[in-house]
Amino acid sequence: MQALVYEKFGNPKEVLALRELPVPEPKAGEVLLKLIKSPIHYHDIAIIRGAYGYRPPLPAIPGSEGVARIEKLGEGVSGFQHGQRVAVSFASNVWAEYFTASAAMVVPLPDAVSDDAACQLFAMPLSAILLMQEMRLQSGDWIVQSAANGTVGRIIIQLARAQGINVINLVRRAEGIAELQAIGAEHVFSSDDEGWARKAREVTGRSPVIRAIDSVGGTTSLQLLGILGKDAQLISFGSMSGQPMQIDSGKLIFANIQIRGFWGGALFDASSADAKRALIAEAVTLVANKQLDLPLEGEYPMNEIQAALTHIARPGKVGKIALGAIV
Amino acid sequence: MQALVYEKFGNPKEVLALRELPVPEPKAGEVLLKLIKSPIHYHDIAIIRGAYGYRPPLPAIPGSEGVARIEKLGEGVSGFQHGQRVAVSFASNVWAEYFTASAAMVVPLPDAVSDDAACQLFAMPLSAILLMQEMRLQSGDWIVQSAANGTVGRIIIQLARAQGINVINLVRRAEGIAELQAIGAEHVFSSDDEGWARKAREVTGRSPVIRAIDSVGGTTSLQLLGILGKDAQLISFGSMSGQPMQIDSGKLIFANIQIRGFWGGALFDASSADAKRALIAEAVTLVANKQLDLPLEGEYPMNEIQAALTHIARPGKVGKIALGAIV
Repeated sequence: MQALVYEKFGNPKEVLALRELPVPEPKAGEVLLKLIKSPIHYHDIAIIRGAYGYRPPLPAIPGSEGVARIEKLGEGVSGFQHGQRVAVSFASNVWAEYFTASAAMVVPLPDAVSDDAACQLFAMPLSAILLMQEMRLQSGDWIVQSAANGTVGRIIIQLARAQGINVINLVRRAEGIAELQAIGAEHVFSSDDEGWARKAREVTGRSPVIRAIDSVGGTTSLQLLGILGKDAQLISFGSMSGQPMQIDSGKLIFANIQIRGFWGGALFDASSADAKRALIAEAVTLVANKQLDLPLEGEYPMNEIQAALTHIARPGKVGKIALGAIV
Repeated sequence: MQALVYEKFGNPKEVLALRELPVPEPKAGEVLLKLIKSPIHYHDIAIIRGAYGYRPPLPAIPGSEGVARIEKLGEGVSGFQHGQRVAVSFASNVWAEYFTASAAMVVPLPDAVSDDAACQLFAMPLSAILLMQEMRLQSGDWIVQSAANGTVGRIIIQLARAQGINVINLVRRAEGIAELQAIGAEHVFSSDDEGWARKAREVTGRSPVIRAIDSVGGTTSLQLLGILGKDAQLISFGSMSGQPMQIDSGKLIFANIQIRGFWGGALFDASSADAKRALIAEAVTLVANKQLDLPLEGEYPMNEIQAALTHIARPGKVGKIALGAIV
């Protein structure tokens, strides 16, 4: 079979190559899956760069979730049928024609969930669901988020609407405003606009902004801090700018602000099996009920990985880029 | 009487001037005090600049604590004698020949406490004591602090020693190392030295560094974060560099680090009257028992305020600069 492989950490465009490898055998408790499609997440890229919270042993096959068909059941596994369509979460080695996964992390899909949504049903939606839980919000609360037109940002907008939470959405380009308004976001501002904080304050009235979600860093963190109210929290879950977060210590001290990190994967890992099942069921239900839309922006066969990686850097994306079977 | 006054917020060297004002009258519950000496704190300067957590109505007399003698008792005040030497905490209008203060915030002094220590008995020691409480440390724990040769830094070193806490002290100049070793600090590194973090890790062995105290900001925050262990906290209580704190979001996310501000004054204000009395008694006792040394680095009469402010900017200070009576 063909698989994407990297033998050293680095820029995915330089270190990823298609290799011929034997089809893996499912161990006891595992299933063998045939890939339909898998999204390219920022954390997949960070892992390939060696810049994530853990570094896999090399050589390694990237890819952490996807939609696939059951090919073969390992010892002790039952309840799946050959050819059945499933989503796989928190997996490894997904960017290959075939890969194995723990049967416990394989989720049968209702027909109402498209392949496009099914391939990205977990990492980002579960992160967003867990992030919403972590923020301990009540209906009517105000929050602010950077990278609002990123995947998690778009999911937060949809989850917040369902929970009656008000979101100030910050994007980095004026064109991003219309893109988010198109999916129903009410309050969208561009950080390019020097007056955005004043305008955002007008929108919130006297209600304090009690949480900020930041996945950009750099001066964006400073901007988010600026409109937070007293006793608020800023939660960082990424660094799209690649710059250290800039934090005004006066604001931390005098407004009693707390800053912390959020790692959805670690939080998911630490959840009980029941909590995991509940989270996965919630993501499937949200999509099946059309409360959560998970579009793809582009799809490339694995042998066109370079074109897929180029597409990822393009601004104004409205969905994930996925890798599919080799054609 | 003569008093230092500012009529607008700004650089103390430009906005402070000596003015002739009437001697104030103590109201009910207050005492009139005759100044012996008062320290120039960084927060005094920040207040004059209009850059502190609150801005007093103008014109204003600066100065927030000092040692003084009882001159007159307001209605309903008893238990003090004319000429008695007292320390005054969390006061206002101190940089004047005479000032009034709430009798509840006036503390009689044992002879064992010198004027030099008595004038600075509260703001910094109480901040350091509250900071130690906030960190919830146990004997044997490791912490790291920037600005270790600042006043709070030096007090933390002394309090930590008494509690069996290990402190990694970071200073910004190689010369600062010997200055801190002279007061018994064991582990002192200069942030100028690129290898300081590696050397600090050698000193801690396998013990994680669980708290960082930062009053510098800028890249110093990044350096402190770098040697923190998992689930650690970074506490900011100032910004000597004047630069935003630089924070690595990857460290927040993957090592689950929390960052927060610390405002000793607000915490003190929020304490019960009993807790306040206990804190003040602790500061007096620490100094009287020689467990806490609070030296002055220089002393200037109020009419030489410009020279005092120049002295403050000098590196390598080993104590506060105080303002005294006009000579």
